Amino acid sequence: MELYTHEYFMNEALKQAKFAFEEGEIPVGAVVVSKNRIIARAYNQTERLNDVTAHAEMLAITAAANYLGAKYLIDCRLYVTLEPCAMCAGALFWSQIGEVHFAASDPKRGFRQNNPNMLHPKTQVFVGSMAEEAETLVRDFFKKLRD
Amino acid sequence: MELYTHEYFMNEALKQAKFAFEEGEIPVGAVVVSKNRIIARAYNQTERLNDVTAHAEMLAITAAANYLGAKYLIDCRLYVTLEPCAMCAGALFWSQIGEVHFAASDPKRGFRQNNPNMLHPKTQVFVGSMAEEAETLVRDFFKKLRD
Repeated sequence: MELYTHEYFMNEALKQAKFAFEEGEIPVGAVVVSKNRIIARAYNQTERLNDVTAHAEMLAITAAANYLGAKYLIDCRLYVTLEPCAMCAGALFWSQIGEVHFAASDPKRGFRQNNPNMLHPKTQVFVGSMAEEAETLVRDFFKKLRD
Repeated sequence: MELYTHEYFMNEALKQAKFAFEEGEIPVGAVVVSKNRIIARAYNQTERLNDVTAHAEMLAITAAANYLGAKYLIDCRLYVTLEPCAMCAGALFWSQIGEVHFAASDPKRGFRQNNPNMLHPKTQVFVGSMAEEAETLVRDFFKKLRD
């Protein structure tokens, strides 16, 4: 029997966020998990792709649906290092994803500022795992930008 | 001097919606206009691409940014046949698009149900041009599905 922890999966999302950091992107990373297997990994690529829609969550949703050959992610879990924005929450709504786990809250652009009930009523939401690491990464990124 | 009307551009969006209809997609179409030239055309492809994020507006935003080589669409106008959902409104927010014109309102999934102030404060919103044609297309689509 293999044992999994939510921290393991969130740490995989954090690794993605670090790739974003290294490439000069706002450091947010995400993974999608199905039956305790990671089926999609993505990080924010808005700069590289020159596309405001290329958030980690959006890329991960598209990749997961592609992997599954199904557009609904009912039995999946998303792990993302930062609270999703309204766009990503809207996409997660349409995906009917089973669970959303996010590390750091985003008091400015997080979906809860917009409408806390944006996700699908069947989606369970978990918050705070590894929040400090995820927050530090974002804070270091903006500090570096200003320096 | 060439004269343009908003109806001309909305009609182009409606043509896109008709392509969606013919392909068995929920019939929504969009165009992005910059300096009175259409720089992106798209229609809903969630079924074909097996991807809940593939709404007409999302594809049009990505295509327009690609055309311009710039991720912000400040001087652009989006024409879309149906009121954008929360995901698309979130994407439009990030794009800082100049104007959003939508034909039919969507009392169920339109962004205004979620939060009427989702778009960027600089974005001007126009509603209702060719609403009847756009609504009829959607109604005919769902009627055909049920038959």
